Amino acid sequence: MRVEILCLGTELLLDKVNTNSNAIAEKLLKIGLSVSQVSTVGDDARDIQTALRGALGRSEVVILCGGLGPTFDDLTRECVSKVTGFPLRFSEAIRRKIQKRFESVRLAMPKENASQAYLLKGAREINNAFGTAPGQIVEWKKRAIILLPGPSKECLPMMDSAVLPYLKRKFPARFAERRILHIFGYPESQIDELIEPVVRRNWDSGAVQTVFGILAHRMMVDVKATVTGPTKDRPKVQKISKEIEKALRDVLGDRIFGMNGETLEGAAGKMLKKRKQTLALAESCTGGRTANKITDIAGSSAYFSEGLVTYSNESKMRLLGVKKQTLQEFGAVSEECAKEMAAGVRKRAGADWGVSITGIAGPDGGSAAKPVGTVCFGVSSKLGTLTFRKSFFGSRTDIKEKSALCALDLLRRELLK
Amino acid sequence: MRVEILCLGTELLLDKVNTNSNAIAEKLLKIGLSVSQVSTVGDDARDIQTALRGALGRSEVVILCGGLGPTFDDLTRECVSKVTGFPLRFSEAIRRKIQKRFESVRLAMPKENASQAYLLKGAREINNAFGTAPGQIVEWKKRAIILLPGPSKECLPMMDSAVLPYLKRKFPARFAERRILHIFGYPESQIDELIEPVVRRNWDSGAVQTVFGILAHRMMVDVKATVTGPTKDRPKVQKISKEIEKALRDVLGDRIFGMNGETLEGAAGKMLKKRKQTLALAESCTGGRTANKITDIAGSSAYFSEGLVTYSNESKMRLLGVKKQTLQEFGAVSEECAKEMAAGVRKRAGADWGVSITGIAGPDGGSAAKPVGTVCFGVSSKLGTLTFRKSFFGSRTDIKEKSALCALDLLRRELLK
Repeated sequence: MRVEILCLGTELLLDKVNTNSNAIAEKLLKIGLSVSQVSTVGDDARDIQTALRGALGRSEVVILCGGLGPTFDDLTRECVSKVTGFPLRFSEAIRRKIQKRFESVRLAMPKENASQAYLLKGAREINNAFGTAPGQIVEWKKRAIILLPGPSKECLPMMDSAVLPYLKRKFPARFAERRILHIFGYPESQIDELIEPVVRRNWDSGAVQTVFGILAHRMMVDVKATVTGPTKDRPKVQKISKEIEKALRDVLGDRIFGMNGETLEGAAGKMLKKRKQTLALAESCTGGRTANKITDIAGSSAYFSEGLVTYSNESKMRLLGVKKQTLQEFGAVSEECAKEMAAGVRKRAGADWGVSITGIAGPDGGSAAKPVGTVCFGVSSKLGTLTFRKSFFGSRTDIKEKSALCALDLLRRELLK
Repeated sequence: MRVEILCLGTELLLDKVNTNSNAIAEKLLKIGLSVSQVSTVGDDARDIQTALRGALGRSEVVILCGGLGPTFDDLTRECVSKVTGFPLRFSEAIRRKIQKRFESVRLAMPKENASQAYLLKGAREINNAFGTAPGQIVEWKKRAIILLPGPSKECLPMMDSAVLPYLKRKFPARFAERRILHIFGYPESQIDELIEPVVRRNWDSGAVQTVFGILAHRMMVDVKATVTGPTKDRPKVQKISKEIEKALRDVLGDRIFGMNGETLEGAAGKMLKKRKQTLALAESCTGGRTANKITDIAGSSAYFSEGLVTYSNESKMRLLGVKKQTLQEFGAVSEECAKEMAAGVRKRAGADWGVSITGIAGPDGGSAAKPVGTVCFGVSSKLGTLTFRKSFFGSRTDIKEKSALCALDLLRRELLK
């Protein structure tokens, strides 16, 4: 069975990197389906229709993503109608839903949004919990055509709520189990070498197959194992998947910080919550990036009391109690300063843990002794304060990101002890 | 003239986000060419050939990216040979070049790499300064077929060194100018309505053409106008592009916060820097996201003194001087609390501006009177402290993001006054 994704939007051809198709493919893999082709065309009716006809000629399932907005260049509904011959019908129920959405934020619905209330004849509506454009599923000549809005935060939840359940019912299902182990701070080649014996082992058994993958991104390495088999082999798939995870954990140990989408901030937060301990942060070069990550986790207020972005030396002294002499003698980017920052924020906030980050994010401000990318960290607890010094390269935001992740990993490792 | 990009590699269908096609399109725009379609297929000979035949049927230029490696799943050369009928010929000169590359890092050339020394009959070689696989340009039935390796650091320099000069010679060159205006906090449909008269006006003049686009993403709307024309019409293209910008600014006014990639934090920062004023932040629900944005700007230390993430009520009182009575009477999410936060952080940091954000990011913590997404803001200066109350919808991170952007826009608007 072939599945294709057709992404619509001139912006995807130029300004906007398409991340939807990868995320949709990832979700499809959960029900054992893989994507054969992704095509992207601009907001041009002829191009859209040609691409859609081509995709329908090759594949049983075509997922269209984008072009469901209310403006003149949103053409998906009309193009699918042209290609299939199904007319578009106005749905008063959908119009009311869209209007309510606007009313809930005290706005009048612009008249253009009424165009989003048209459904293809015979289509079922997919509810959009995070936007105004509903999705649609329509069957045509034994094909399934699925229309989804372009914004990720709208189309991805709709994959889970409606598209996957529909495809699972519609097509003889395979069962898939996927485990992704997340590692921070090791080079891809080193992880690759460690897992080689596991990857080389023959895990296949009858119709049950395993695919391994490794993916590096910004100091992170993901090791992926996908086991698929016919639905009747579900217990076998689960057993093999579990065995592979165990084999990978045996070779990787505590290099693994989480699994299946878990983040460093999630892993550290979980440990703090379990121990009923609290955390306070003192950031300089990361400028709030670490606090932002921590507070992305729902319920973080249970363990995160405060974060101070002390960008100036004066702030470091006034808010954290860093000594003037320390700043003069060692500079703001030093393990000595990081130590006083971490201990200071912990003490003043009355928290169990204090973490600090101070460094040079660039592009200016580096020197021979402390080049751009030099970052110092402190982790303080009742047992004392440890400090670390690291070097990162990349752009200003790269260095901020890597520093924030590193701070979270240092905290996680101290919590593990 | 139509240009298509065909990306090859199974990893692009699942794990690896395709950024090459956007970068290649951006480069092509410099010589006035736009990309009509991007297709991605896996390492499957039949899929590659079908996609290539389709692309050659529609477009005069087809750029293939990827599949030039030395391993069994690198099929691009063979597939282009099959589709065009041009045989592959071994080039001893290329083989020697590849061998030298290995020798320069003191490695023996694996025998697999010899497969990279095959050129299509009639093709010109594109030198690859950063890898072993050379690119190729071959002309077939008035089409140009361009083969590039997949890694960005290899194919993008080859675009500059060989592909753009070739296309410029081959196709009557065009000149392009692109202006993107950025707007925050207005629905896409409302902006669409405002710009309609400008978009509908006929800007085309002779061979000079204009394409408008509108793109919404997380409370942002981008209005884009791309004007292209023959190189000799360069002054005309520039004049029309400028006139369009003026016409758009006339209807959109100060809704526009920036142009061609400028951010809200960049726009606000520029104004602070110009006035030699400083900013201090007090964040609650945004958890450092606003400070993180501000410090993404290089040189922000000139105007950003500190940011306090006061997540707990105790922090709000201790660090900002919010009164206990205010918290008891109105709650932490109130304009009263936002006012004391903004005024407090401004005073204690000795800054010219104080900005505060306090709200309910969810998913829990909402009530009937203050549902999830309720956010209060304060903007404090020597003229006094203004407060605002807004409602946002979306996930926890959506609400954080929208609140951070809104705070920056409120500051920008006060700075404009």
